[in-house]
Amino acid sequence: MQKYGGTSVADPDRIRAVADHVVRTHRAGKQVVVVVSAMGKSTDDFVRLAHDVSSDPHGREMDMLLTAGERISMALLCMAIIDLGLHAVSFTGSQAGIVTDTVHGKAKILEVKGDRIRETLANGAVAVVAGFQGISTDRDITTLGRGGSDTTAVALAASLGAEVCEIYTDVSGVFTADPRVVPEARKLAKVSFEEMLEMAATGGKVLALRSVEFARNYGVPVHVRSSFTWEPGTWVVEEDLSMEQAIISGVTHDASEAKVTIAQVADRPGVAASLFRALADAAVNVDMIVQNVSTAGHTDISFTVPKDDLHRAIAVMEKISGDLEATGITHDSNVARVSVVGAGMRTNPGVAAKMFEVLARQGVNIEMISTSSIRISCVVPLPDVERAVIALHSAFDLQIA
Amino acid sequence: MQKYGGTSVADPDRIRAVADHVVRTHRAGKQVVVVVSAMGKSTDDFVRLAHDVSSDPHGREMDMLLTAGERISMALLCMAIIDLGLHAVSFTGSQAGIVTDTVHGKAKILEVKGDRIRETLANGAVAVVAGFQGISTDRDITTLGRGGSDTTAVALAASLGAEVCEIYTDVSGVFTADPRVVPEARKLAKVSFEEMLEMAATGGKVLALRSVEFARNYGVPVHVRSSFTWEPGTWVVEEDLSMEQAIISGVTHDASEAKVTIAQVADRPGVAASLFRALADAAVNVDMIVQNVSTAGHTDISFTVPKDDLHRAIAVMEKISGDLEATGITHDSNVARVSVVGAGMRTNPGVAAKMFEVLARQGVNIEMISTSSIRISCVVPLPDVERAVIALHSAFDLQIA
Repeated sequence: MQKYGGTSVADPDRIRAVADHVVRTHRAGKQVVVVVSAMGKSTDDFVRLAHDVSSDPHGREMDMLLTAGERISMALLCMAIIDLGLHAVSFTGSQAGIVTDTVHGKAKILEVKGDRIRETLANGAVAVVAGFQGISTDRDITTLGRGGSDTTAVALAASLGAEVCEIYTDVSGVFTADPRVVPEARKLAKVSFEEMLEMAATGGKVLALRSVEFARNYGVPVHVRSSFTWEPGTWVVEEDLSMEQAIISGVTHDASEAKVTIAQVADRPGVAASLFRALADAAVNVDMIVQNVSTAGHTDISFTVPKDDLHRAIAVMEKISGDLEATGITHDSNVARVSVVGAGMRTNPGVAAKMFEVLARQGVNIEMISTSSIRISCVVPLPDVERAVIALHSAFDLQIA
Repeated sequence: MQKYGGTSVADPDRIRAVADHVVRTHRAGKQVVVVVSAMGKSTDDFVRLAHDVSSDPHGREMDMLLTAGERISMALLCMAIIDLGLHAVSFTGSQAGIVTDTVHGKAKILEVKGDRIRETLANGAVAVVAGFQGISTDRDITTLGRGGSDTTAVALAASLGAEVCEIYTDVSGVFTADPRVVPEARKLAKVSFEEMLEMAATGGKVLALRSVEFARNYGVPVHVRSSFTWEPGTWVVEEDLSMEQAIISGVTHDASEAKVTIAQVADRPGVAASLFRALADAAVNVDMIVQNVSTAGHTDISFTVPKDDLHRAIAVMEKISGDLEATGITHDSNVARVSVVGAGMRTNPGVAAKMFEVLARQGVNIEMISTSSIRISCVVPLPDVERAVIALHSAFDLQIA
């Protein structure tokens, strides 16, 4: 299984380079299924067109429109492969049997049939499948949302029992930090599903969260690598418990969220539930949630939301703050989150303490903290985040040896 | 049934104008099914991309690629209609149940199911269907070839029992001659299926031949009109035998064919058959065929082929000319055909004589002649063809009164 993102098939030259790699893989004795994204920025062009003809493009029709993108790239890729003397057959999400629910724009995969793909492989040909798309139980075309092509690839790999799902992209793997911020960042040879999940959730942009969840749930080994250099990249695999774990695998950061605090709400059962139910009903994606201990029967609740959702979140909260007996709502968009992720954290106490010390030495104020068993995240002022990433990367010895 | 060609939906402004017209038609109490082509020149862009990645693009993948074009235009048109407050649902050829044979690039429609379209109309919505495409009996995506969207529209109109199939285009109807050549050319209010067939076959480019055949076979009234001026155009209908027929409805011309002559072939049964079988097997589209009376057991056979097929035709003929005892093969690309078409010709002798006199007066040499009951065609030197059209148009009194 090989998946190629938009930059990997952005123009005819890139498509021919990908075709060449597919043919080499096949000649090396592998059966190859390719999942392909739309060319370059074509999806953005379609979205712009949709807004040119409609003030609020209809979900079903938006999916019909967007799915033209993979149709174009996969047909071109097949032609290029055939031109090199190997047979290739393209399949839309529908033809590949990717059955989804009916939620246009972010459908969930319910079933992967894949009969025609198996047939194609049995005939010695390469199957090229449109990423990002499926057919709903109502027989309408759906799309899987952001990172959907990765999810298609992993789901198909699971269904077909592929030995590996290679995700080809424009970076050469998963790094210990964003190399644009930390020039000494090191490419990881291997990372566990759990670490990758935490990284994806906290700003690592290489793989979409859903595709990693899928890979973990079905045990599909993922190899993230470059379609520009073709060098070996990063393997995302089951945690190998027999090996010693690096304490920290990476430092991630994310400046896309805003912090919201609702002050002095009544501290009784059901308050948090009614707050977050109201936000969920308004389709606000709440991420980190922190609640401090209560004083005098009242407490502060802070959480982060995507900056795009902030306006909606505030409107919802103003409507219900009376019921919650809150004294006020504050918000701050000028924040970012920095996280350290590592499976070795479980067996190495003191990581949190060290992280807080590093930030303190840098004079970076910590506004919120949340942790999982293999991650510690701090919300910090936006202007300080890159300094924080650089300092943490160095303090945890992640740089190139 | 309304069909919109590429120029009618070439950009967001055009798409919104079409949406507006669809909504007006619906408000006037009509159920509306729309068939739509790809936007502007996007099909040409796809063909260019295909040739950028492959020296000989594979037919199945070419069809997969090209069908992205209607997917884009129909989704955008639906969004624009929905934006105006009417519901609209887009359907690919496959979703509309347009079942074809398996000949990629020029598939023939075998069956039109249309269940989902009927459902959509019953729900009070507009159905927008991708023209030019279908799904083969092998479940692969096919395209119908040149003029395929017209054929989709007429076939759907027949299947749904539509009261009219409106073909919206960038000209305002069918004219007595090409207005670029004859500025006095007049728009016809009405033309019979048979006349339209002859016009389409001899250079009239408004409607594709296959769609007219379909309309005639199923008795679908077609109204050819402009999506730029929205004025009434030309009705293509059953011949009305009770009315007096115009002797000549139009003068057409076509410069796309070359003349080929094979000299002194043996005049015995089976010779013509083996010649044209060989050409057909090489996918050469032979059009006019003329054979003169035989002298001394040998005869000349002349015919026309598309200039694009000329090279292939000559190669085939050179291979078999020995078997046919031919003395030589000549060809001439510097020719064109001029035709007069009119149902009234059947009951008015002397049309051919008049045509030949007009051409003689203009000093135009006639190189080949062929006739049907309602058409006379002459192959003439290419440099003379526009002069011939102008003279014939005037001689048969076709100009604006």
